[in-house]
Amino acid sequence: MNVREVGEFGLIERLARIVGVERPDVVVGIGDDVAVLDVGGPDWLLATVDCQMEDVHFLRHAIPPDQLGRRALAVNLSDIAAVGGRPHFALVSLALPDHIEVEWVEALYGGLRQEGERAGVAVVGGNISRSPDGAFIDITVLGRVRREHLLRRSGARPGDVVLVTGTLGDAAAGLRLLLNPEVEVEPAVRQVLLGRLFTPTPRLREAEAIVHTGGATAMIDISDGLSSDVGHICEASRVGVRLWAERLPLSGEARHAARLLGVPAWELALVGGEDYELCLTARPEAADALVAAVAAATAATRASAASGRAVRQSS
Amino acid sequence: MNVREVGEFGLIERLARIVGVERPDVVVGIGDDVAVLDVGGPDWLLATVDCQMEDVHFLRHAIPPDQLGRRALAVNLSDIAAVGGRPHFALVSLALPDHIEVEWVEALYGGLRQEGERAGVAVVGGNISRSPDGAFIDITVLGRVRREHLLRRSGARPGDVVLVTGTLGDAAAGLRLLLNPEVEVEPAVRQVLLGRLFTPTPRLREAEAIVHTGGATAMIDISDGLSSDVGHICEASRVGVRLWAERLPLSGEARHAARLLGVPAWELALVGGEDYELCLTARPEAADALVAAVAAATAATRASAASGRAVRQSS
Repeated sequence: MNVREVGEFGLIERLARIVGVERPDVVVGIGDDVAVLDVGGPDWLLATVDCQMEDVHFLRHAIPPDQLGRRALAVNLSDIAAVGGRPHFALVSLALPDHIEVEWVEALYGGLRQEGERAGVAVVGGNISRSPDGAFIDITVLGRVRREHLLRRSGARPGDVVLVTGTLGDAAAGLRLLLNPEVEVEPAVRQVLLGRLFTPTPRLREAEAIVHTGGATAMIDISDGLSSDVGHICEASRVGVRLWAERLPLSGEARHAARLLGVPAWELALVGGEDYELCLTARPEAADALVAAVAAATAATRASAASGRAVRQSS
Repeated sequence: MNVREVGEFGLIERLARIVGVERPDVVVGIGDDVAVLDVGGPDWLLATVDCQMEDVHFLRHAIPPDQLGRRALAVNLSDIAAVGGRPHFALVSLALPDHIEVEWVEALYGGLRQEGERAGVAVVGGNISRSPDGAFIDITVLGRVRREHLLRRSGARPGDVVLVTGTLGDAAAGLRLLLNPEVEVEPAVRQVLLGRLFTPTPRLREAEAIVHTGGATAMIDISDGLSSDVGHICEASRVGVRLWAERLPLSGEARHAARLLGVPAWELALVGGEDYELCLTARPEAADALVAAVAAATAATRASAASGRAVRQSS
C-alpha cells in the first residue's frame, strides 16, 4: 500500500503508534498541529512545523516571493494562535534548486521578516540544502502559552456554540479565480480574494482576546476548510456538530465570485480551506463576551456562532 | 546570480542580514547550527533543523529506511551535543511522493524511535505533505542546556589545543566504497565503514562529560570535515589553527580502505565529512582531564589534541 492510498491522516495515525510516547514533559504530542511541551519554565513551550512545496502548495511564477515568505510563516503562526499561544521564534529550512536566483530567496526572507515583525517573531536559524527539483520551504515556529490559557481540540461539550473569526471561503474563491483565468471579475474583488489566498492573516490578537475571556472550550485554525477542521474538534471532543449553510460568514467578494464561478458560496466556506481563521466552541452564555472581545481586535463575525451547535455524538 | 554561485555560507550571510535581530531572548541566532533561546526557564532552549533530501543526501535504494531514520535524527542530535546540550523532542516534517510504500515510512519511523529512545528524545509532532518528486525528511530537534554549560564556536583562544572524539574519515571511506563498487574490500571492513556512514553516533555522552569538566573553550560537530568545521571555530574565535596530518585519529579500517581506494587517509579525515564527531578546543593543561572524561564514555582519542594548536590569526 502506498502513502496516497492510506491518506495523510491514516498515515499519521500509523506513525503515531510507532513513535507515540507518554511522558510528563509532553503535554500534547504527535497527531496535533502543535506540540505542547514542558521545558521547566512558567509557560508551556509550543512547537509547530509546516511546509510549502513548489508545485504542491505554490506555483513559483504565480506568487511573488515576499508574499510566499509571509504566507509560509503565517500558516505556522495560525497554528500557534489556535492553541491560545504567542509565537516567538522561527527556524527556516530551505531546499533550493541550483538555478534559483539569490534575489528570489532574499525577497522570500524580506516577507519572512515583515510577517515576523508584525507578530514579534525572530528568525533564529534554519538550514539550507540543495534540492534536485523544486523549492521547499519548511518552517518551524516556537511559541509559548500560559498553562491556564492552553486551548485544545478536545474541550468542546454538548450544547456549545461554534464561533469563527472573520469570513470564510475568500481564499478558496481566490484560488478558483487563479485556476480559471477565463472568469472575468472586477480587479478590486480579485485583489481582495487573492490577497486572502496569498497572505493570510494569523489571528494572534484574536486568540489572545479569546483566551483572556476564559470562555472558549476548544479551538482550531481553519486550514483545510471549516467542515474538516470543526470535524477535528468533534473527533477529539467526542461531540457532533450542526452547521447552517445560510449562517456561514461570507464576504461580499466571496459571494460575488461564487456567482461568477458557478459554485455555491457555502461550498467555498465549508470545504474551500486556506482561510486561517479560528474556529472555537463555547458555552452559549459565553458567546457574547467572546464576540465582543474578538471584535475589539478585528471585525470578528458571530455568524457561525448562530450557525453551529454541538450535540452529543451518536457513534 | 543564482544560489549555487553564491554558495551555502554566502547565502546564509546574506539572509542573516535581512532577518537577523538583536533580542535579549535570542542568545545565539541565525548563522549557527543551533539556536540558543531564553524562554524563561532555568535552562536555555536549543533548536536545530537538518534535512535529508532524496538524491542529494541519500539514495533511497542504497540505505535501508530504518537506518535512514536513525541517521536523519542522529545528525541533529550531534548538533545539540556540539553546544553541550541534551536533546528532548523532535518534530518530523515529511514530503513524500504518492507512490512511496507505507511500509517504507513505517520503517523510517522505526529508526526514528530507536535512535530517539537511545537519546531520550520523543517525536512530538511534525507535518506530512506531498512531494512531486523525491522524499524529503526535515527534522527539528529541541533540547536544553544549562546556562553555564553552553559551548560556542567563539571561545577558542591562542595556545588552545584541538581535540576530537573518536576517529575521522570512516564515513568518507564508506561513501567512496559505495561509489566505487569495483574496489574489493573485506566484508568486515566494509560493514564498519558503511555503518559509520549510515548510522553515525551522536556524541551526547561525550558532550556531557566534556561540559562537566569545564575545560573546553569552544566546540562544534564535524559534519563537513575537520578542516571545514575547525575553520568555523577559527572564524568565530578569530584564531588560526595548525594541524598535523600524521596525528589525525584514523581507524585501521579507514587506513586500509584508503590504500585500496588510492587516496591519502588524511584527506578522508580532513575533508571527507559526515563524521559527526565532536571537535573542541581547550587550554593545554585541561586536555588530560577532558580526554579522561571522554574516555569514560567512549574510546575517545587524543590524537588531534597533539595534532592541533590554535594560534593568533594573522588576518
